[in-house]
Amino acid sequence: MTGSPREPQQDRSRLTRERLLTSTIDILSGQGWAAATVARVAEEAGVSRGAAQHHFPTREVLITAALEQMFTDLTASAAQDVADLPAGPERIGIVVARAVEIYVGRNFRAALQVWAAAASDEVLREQILPLEAKFARAAHEMTLAGLDPDGRNPNAYRLAQATLDLARGLGLAATLSDDSRRRAQVVATWVEQVELGLGG
Amino acid sequence: MTGSPREPQQDRSRLTRERLLTSTIDILSGQGWAAATVARVAEEAGVSRGAAQHHFPTREVLITAALEQMFTDLTASAAQDVADLPAGPERIGIVVARAVEIYVGRNFRAALQVWAAAASDEVLREQILPLEAKFARAAHEMTLAGLDPDGRNPNAYRLAQATLDLARGLGLAATLSDDSRRRAQVVATWVEQVELGLGG
Repeated sequence: MTGSPREPQQDRSRLTRERLLTSTIDILSGQGWAAATVARVAEEAGVSRGAAQHHFPTREVLITAALEQMFTDLTASAAQDVADLPAGPERIGIVVARAVEIYVGRNFRAALQVWAAAASDEVLREQILPLEAKFARAAHEMTLAGLDPDGRNPNAYRLAQATLDLARGLGLAATLSDDSRRRAQVVATWVEQVELGLGG
Repeated sequence: MTGSPREPQQDRSRLTRERLLTSTIDILSGQGWAAATVARVAEEAGVSRGAAQHHFPTREVLITAALEQMFTDLTASAAQDVADLPAGPERIGIVVARAVEIYVGRNFRAALQVWAAAASDEVLREQILPLEAKFARAAHEMTLAGLDPDGRNPNAYRLAQATLDLARGLGLAATLSDDSRRRAQVVATWVEQVELGLGG
């Protein structure tokens, strides 16, 4: 706190924005695309419609900001310090599990609603593709750093790619039903394969 | 043709039903979930609304039948005779490519719209889960038979599972943008991994 008279208002504004984004993600993941309108989100967040429209004048702006928030949260939760990882085969298990965690859960379920809508909405698609590309790069960098901390394994780049594609596929399967037991088997198989592929 | 007087009408009825299902899949994959109503599908198919409602009294019945059609088409296109596959490492490449083909293209894009809608619609979800389970079993059996024609490799079952999860993740990535070059790299990496995993 610097004592500037503008600060409390800026804080309130920031908090309102955060509440609206949280409600957007909640609604997308729980009620789906059609429900995620500025009006419904404002109601869920306990914010007046005018205040919501001040922050997010259109649904597209709100959805894009929410997707950016999801991607930030997703990469933050997976980006624990690579230096803390144990050496040896155990490390690969942790890195693969973190990649899968990105795609399983509330944030991915919400993002899936946006992707499905964007598949048939070119304007929305053009808006979210740069976010998607930035997110994909961040996820790949994290996974690669985990699989190959020394940056010397020639197979690590493509194994990191394949790991994230697998994780996305597991995440999509998890949106319909809880298949966590099956998923654990597939992850175990995958970890063995990555060990083989890295020549471990 | 047996000459039965009922046959032509049955044929027409079957053709009308097929046209409606094809239009449903076209609309889902091209325009998304919200557009796939019985009325819009009837219009697209050039069928009267009354005739459409005779075949599919509700949107749920139409969507479920369309999903069943997608799954049938998806497994049929991938279910070429396993006996025709070449022996050796080439076979694994073909089997993995077929698995990926299941999830890339119009049928998967349409199915994704239904899955995304079902994620927040419990009634729809309960209706499609048995179809989804049947489809998953068929895809797994095909992939397993391709990877392990003799049924003797202890790793084949789980490698077939992982192959399909990877394929699903690649398919989801392909719905937003054409990433076929990146996908080809990931597929090549995975084929090598499966060869290693099968002890080839």
